[in-house]
Amino acid sequence: MNTNRPIDDDELLRYWIPRLVADGGDPNDALAVRNRAATWDEWPVAWAEIAESYLAIGSDREGRGHAPSASAAYVRAAICFHFAQVVAFHLPDLKIDLQASKTAAFVRAAPLMSPPAERTSIPFGDTTLPAYIRIPAGREGPVAGVVLVPGLDSTKEDFATLMEMIVARGLAVLAFDGPGQGEAHPDLLLGQNYEACISAAVDAFAARPEVDANRIGTIGRSLGGIYVVKAAADRRIRATVVFGGAWDLGDWPTMPPLIRAGFVWATGAEGEDDALAQVADATLDDCIADVASPVLVVHGRHDAIFKAAQAERIAAALPNNATLWMVEDGVHCCHNRAFEVRTGMVDWLAERL
Amino acid sequence: MNTNRPIDDDELLRYWIPRLVADGGDPNDALAVRNRAATWDEWPVAWAEIAESYLAIGSDREGRGHAPSASAAYVRAAICFHFAQVVAFHLPDLKIDLQASKTAAFVRAAPLMSPPAERTSIPFGDTTLPAYIRIPAGREGPVAGVVLVPGLDSTKEDFATLMEMIVARGLAVLAFDGPGQGEAHPDLLLGQNYEACISAAVDAFAARPEVDANRIGTIGRSLGGIYVVKAAADRRIRATVVFGGAWDLGDWPTMPPLIRAGFVWATGAEGEDDALAQVADATLDDCIADVASPVLVVHGRHDAIFKAAQAERIAAALPNNATLWMVEDGVHCCHNRAFEVRTGMVDWLAERL
Repeated sequence: MNTNRPIDDDELLRYWIPRLVADGGDPNDALAVRNRAATWDEWPVAWAEIAESYLAIGSDREGRGHAPSASAAYVRAAICFHFAQVVAFHLPDLKIDLQASKTAAFVRAAPLMSPPAERTSIPFGDTTLPAYIRIPAGREGPVAGVVLVPGLDSTKEDFATLMEMIVARGLAVLAFDGPGQGEAHPDLLLGQNYEACISAAVDAFAARPEVDANRIGTIGRSLGGIYVVKAAADRRIRATVVFGGAWDLGDWPTMPPLIRAGFVWATGAEGEDDALAQVADATLDDCIADVASPVLVVHGRHDAIFKAAQAERIAAALPNNATLWMVEDGVHCCHNRAFEVRTGMVDWLAERL
Repeated sequence: MNTNRPIDDDELLRYWIPRLVADGGDPNDALAVRNRAATWDEWPVAWAEIAESYLAIGSDREGRGHAPSASAAYVRAAICFHFAQVVAFHLPDLKIDLQASKTAAFVRAAPLMSPPAERTSIPFGDTTLPAYIRIPAGREGPVAGVVLVPGLDSTKEDFATLMEMIVARGLAVLAFDGPGQGEAHPDLLLGQNYEACISAAVDAFAARPEVDANRIGTIGRSLGGIYVVKAAADRRIRATVVFGGAWDLGDWPTMPPLIRAGFVWATGAEGEDDALAQVADATLDDCIADVASPVLVVHGRHDAIFKAAQAERIAAALPNNATLWMVEDGVHCCHNRAFEVRTGMVDWLAERL
């Protein structure tokens, strides 16, 4: 990606603002960044300044004992730090710093939420994966739960709005960073067999007495949408949502340069060819026959990363148990139709868990 | 207002999208309206179409038993109907229809909210005022409460996000339509002595066993900000927030034409001069000496309706009990800084009630 070019309104309005708002950010902040940053080179610092202003609000409100507004301010800080780092592949030290700031902001938000987001560690091989679990208040007996699987260069913190939506209707939720994502990177890089970490997350979730181990579903966002289908061979997973996902990485040549840079970053590869080789098993070719539980495939017809044909292929391969929800005017992950799609995914899961 | 002119992006981005988002709407919808409506003449129908799509989502989700998403969809429908009617003074029949649709959408949302918004009628002279009350769940004994007072051409439904914010931190909330507002119009027109309806709302709120009658505060939005200060002579009101309000209507000559049209509409006057005469008592000249309780004056320096000097005058007249919060880059009601300002108002009230 050439970052020394102007930020044009069209790209801002069509993709970035919808994604920002869907994940809990404020379009006013994007408009402020537009006024401060002439080029994408200036984008990270402009967002980081706004993130810092939210940290200041959060500290003030926390000090005065106002948990609801303090936690909301810290979540906004995390989202702004995410947007700050999202294009900064050419400035790796800055990107790492901004990701650390994103993590730290959410750490401050988590215990102040209602119900709190409990920070936990999921055993995974000889290491652990960082995660948040939210358990709804006022439950009677164990409740169904949803495991949220992030996409490329996306993390558990980006699920703040989905987590809120899920606990608000009485379901438990777990979001984690897998290999190559958020806090797991760079110690643990994206590579083969990502789906093993989804089963590890289900293990940890099912072990909680508040969660009904027989009523667990998943939502996989973007790249995570490939891996949740692979994980669906784990029969404990009762329902799966492919949220802007794909059958495989066959769209690689037409993906935006920012996305291919994301694969290089997440895999720690030497270059794009090497990155693609590292994730060669990101395909449903060998696993689709093992998927027997219900699958909802949500996709935007205008997705510029994973083409609509990817989603159609998944649905066609599962004629008895997949539902295709193609949003005709939707962009990647239908961020521009987030309300309908995100509430719809959660409603669909609630009916099946 | 000349409505046969193009909708320009600058006005959309600087004022309408911030206001929409602050009140719980979706910037994607404003961008969709931008694509459908070339001029302000086409604005009402474009918004109404989007509102209808939310009603359809709400009906579907309600039918499937998903109260959280159904109520959220109906609230969005109400907000879109509000935006549809907001410029339609030249089409009075359409404006009345759209306002009725707004009311009806929120009626469907109210019982599905958690906690529900209870629809109630406030006795007021020989008639009643329609209102919603939300009582937080999980309380121990009576709780403090906040009365929300709408502004010109604004209604109780526009307080959806503030109501949510208030109940989420354990306070009760009441929002109503006063003379000239929402359902009260046109049977009851805006005129003299508006503040009497605020005392009537406090009567109704204080009569609820869940509400501590000694811990009631108010937030008055825009024009409502004048009337909450007048109402503060009622000593039961322990704290008052002037949210983008004014000392008086001295800025009349420089107000946007849309606002003066709003006064004509709300008062049922023959024209602008008559309208201004109908609200001649919208001034703090005679009441300010009676205000002894704490007052927070929140204002945007760039307010194009009520100039910053209006807010400064209130604060200067109450040196012992007013706090001025001037947001230097804020527009009217600081809609472009809604998160900080709205959480801040509620936090301020929570500390004083």
